[in-house]
Amino acid sequence: MSTLKRLKEKVVVTTEMVKPTSRSMKAVGAFNPGAAEFGSEVVLLVRVAEAAAKKRDGYKSSPRFAGEPGRSEIIIDWSDIAREKAVDKKTGRFPFWQWRLNFVSHLRLARLSADGFTLKYLDDKPTFYPECEWESFGVEDCRITPIEGSYYVTYVAIGLLTGVATALAKTDDFKTFKRLGIIFPQSNKDVVLFPEKINGRYYALHRPMPQHSFSEANIQIASSPDLEHWGHTEFLMGTNKEPWSSAKVGAGAPPIKTKDGWLEIYHGVNTRESGGSAGTYSAGALLLDLNNPSRIITRTKHPILIPQMPYEINGYVGHVVFPEGIVRRGDSVIIYSGCADTCVSAVEVSLNDIFNVLK
Amino acid sequence: MSTLKRLKEKVVVTTEMVKPTSRSMKAVGAFNPGAAEFGSEVVLLVRVAEAAAKKRDGYKSSPRFAGEPGRSEIIIDWSDIAREKAVDKKTGRFPFWQWRLNFVSHLRLARLSADGFTLKYLDDKPTFYPECEWESFGVEDCRITPIEGSYYVTYVAIGLLTGVATALAKTDDFKTFKRLGIIFPQSNKDVVLFPEKINGRYYALHRPMPQHSFSEANIQIASSPDLEHWGHTEFLMGTNKEPWSSAKVGAGAPPIKTKDGWLEIYHGVNTRESGGSAGTYSAGALLLDLNNPSRIITRTKHPILIPQMPYEINGYVGHVVFPEGIVRRGDSVIIYSGCADTCVSAVEVSLNDIFNVLK
Repeated sequence: MSTLKRLKEKVVVTTEMVKPTSRSMKAVGAFNPGAAEFGSEVVLLVRVAEAAAKKRDGYKSSPRFAGEPGRSEIIIDWSDIAREKAVDKKTGRFPFWQWRLNFVSHLRLARLSADGFTLKYLDDKPTFYPECEWESFGVEDCRITPIEGSYYVTYVAIGLLTGVATALAKTDDFKTFKRLGIIFPQSNKDVVLFPEKINGRYYALHRPMPQHSFSEANIQIASSPDLEHWGHTEFLMGTNKEPWSSAKVGAGAPPIKTKDGWLEIYHGVNTRESGGSAGTYSAGALLLDLNNPSRIITRTKHPILIPQMPYEINGYVGHVVFPEGIVRRGDSVIIYSGCADTCVSAVEVSLNDIFNVLK
Repeated sequence: MSTLKRLKEKVVVTTEMVKPTSRSMKAVGAFNPGAAEFGSEVVLLVRVAEAAAKKRDGYKSSPRFAGEPGRSEIIIDWSDIAREKAVDKKTGRFPFWQWRLNFVSHLRLARLSADGFTLKYLDDKPTFYPECEWESFGVEDCRITPIEGSYYVTYVAIGLLTGVATALAKTDDFKTFKRLGIIFPQSNKDVVLFPEKINGRYYALHRPMPQHSFSEANIQIASSPDLEHWGHTEFLMGTNKEPWSSAKVGAGAPPIKTKDGWLEIYHGVNTRESGGSAGTYSAGALLLDLNNPSRIITRTKHPILIPQMPYEINGYVGHVVFPEGIVRRGDSVIIYSGCADTCVSAVEVSLNDIFNVLK
């Protein structure tokens, strides 16, 4: 298995660069970025995860957002672990706090110079902040697609009542965002939009997670007349036989148009070994029919990026390269990924190299 | 707790009335019907579940549909229980056949006379039959809504690759159906359409099931410009504190318009007692704002129908009243339900009585 030659690579945003939202919080990750060309720059919307700055012995901290639109604040719920650790005998459920994460996420703008590798600006406060009930447990893992002169942001919105859903927002300036609601209800992540209409319809890849999996997590495709309403979901691609993507697959960056088809950089997760650590996340490439994106022309048998650098191997969740953005630079593309749930990398690879392994 | 007075009730379709699709199959249930007024009649689309007619010692039978559109046939997969019963040690998954059901479902037309209680005709072959990959494990639990002169059928479509999703079909005659695709991807059931536009938009109730439940199953509401594409999902109602609907809730019959609001008959499931049998399914009523159906005006604290008749208590899955259809008859409504996953009942109740308990 040989991955692609990395022409250039760099960590562009790290957790250490992030100023916490408040004194009660600390940043524990800056990762999983949406990316897009904006004027002469490349902009990123980086997922920033924050946890309680202090610990309390015997308690678990679960942060969440509360408050009015535009005036949200982070509240930390403290759970007494000893008192609440038992499974509820009647319902068979774990107590609710066990489902809660000890961190919560928002999105922060980073601006890179035209080369796509040099950080010029990182917002010192949240750029896109949870502000409604269905975002109260955070917003995560966005993708940015330029469509008809505006930028559409798909993001994971997590709420107590609506679960892990994907929502849509629109922006023209990366300062103000118009929320367009939940487009793919729970449990659905890894939603990417195609950048233009195909035969009069918009298309999205999405990855609904089954309640009881008789199938594995797989990539599905839906279409829309207006980006806000989606239907005609069809299966696109399931897990692969090759180990690197045998456990889970999901769309990564928004597809880009090439003369040979829509190029989609996706992620695959390998099968967890019995008793071992969580799976390794790698990146592969798919080529979809220009006129019928629900048809796969070909895919890479081997991953094009695997965790190999120290910052991809070590971190909050190690062994993770999670591509979410792609920008063209002549005969190359720069792929923006979250690494080990800790930092953001930019990796330049040759389009020719990708097409060579796609053949 | 007092349920509503049943003015009239009758079992209108039973499993025994159903002619199997082929000699290799036998009907094991005729239940969970969609219902609508059609001309002077009431039509039902009854879910018919069939299992292999014969058993093989040591094997589990899992039927599915295969073949061309319009020429489907049922194939039975036989699994050697002794050989395949182990959990896959590497993936931690049960072998696939353990997720498969030993029956598979299609929809069959029943015609009732104008009184809504007298069976005139039951199709002796499948009326709406699985015919594509995403229906290969069956079509189930439909709802019928008359909209602008046509009938729209939402139904659960089960496929290996797309899981348990809800799809839409349209008919004018209950003989031919135009498929309009999956509208709510996996895992989503209990989808009902409102019968007319509200402020220029169509509305649906749906019930997405989370992958990992930090919330319980709850009813959500979405809207659409054209019935085929859906967005703007919002939370509508979760499980109730009262035991009869404390474990799960889901929309039942399509809402009907009254001067006081949209009347929705929904189902609730009680909390399974530790070590006890599966939950009891009962029916409750909700009243939604005529101009803003995402606003609940009121709901019944107690169920309006609970399993009490022998055919509601005893059957393939006992203790189930599962309402899916409603038809107005003057000051009354007839509610059509699946009973104990075995037969179809019609129960007439007074609208005044419903509104009295809603207040």
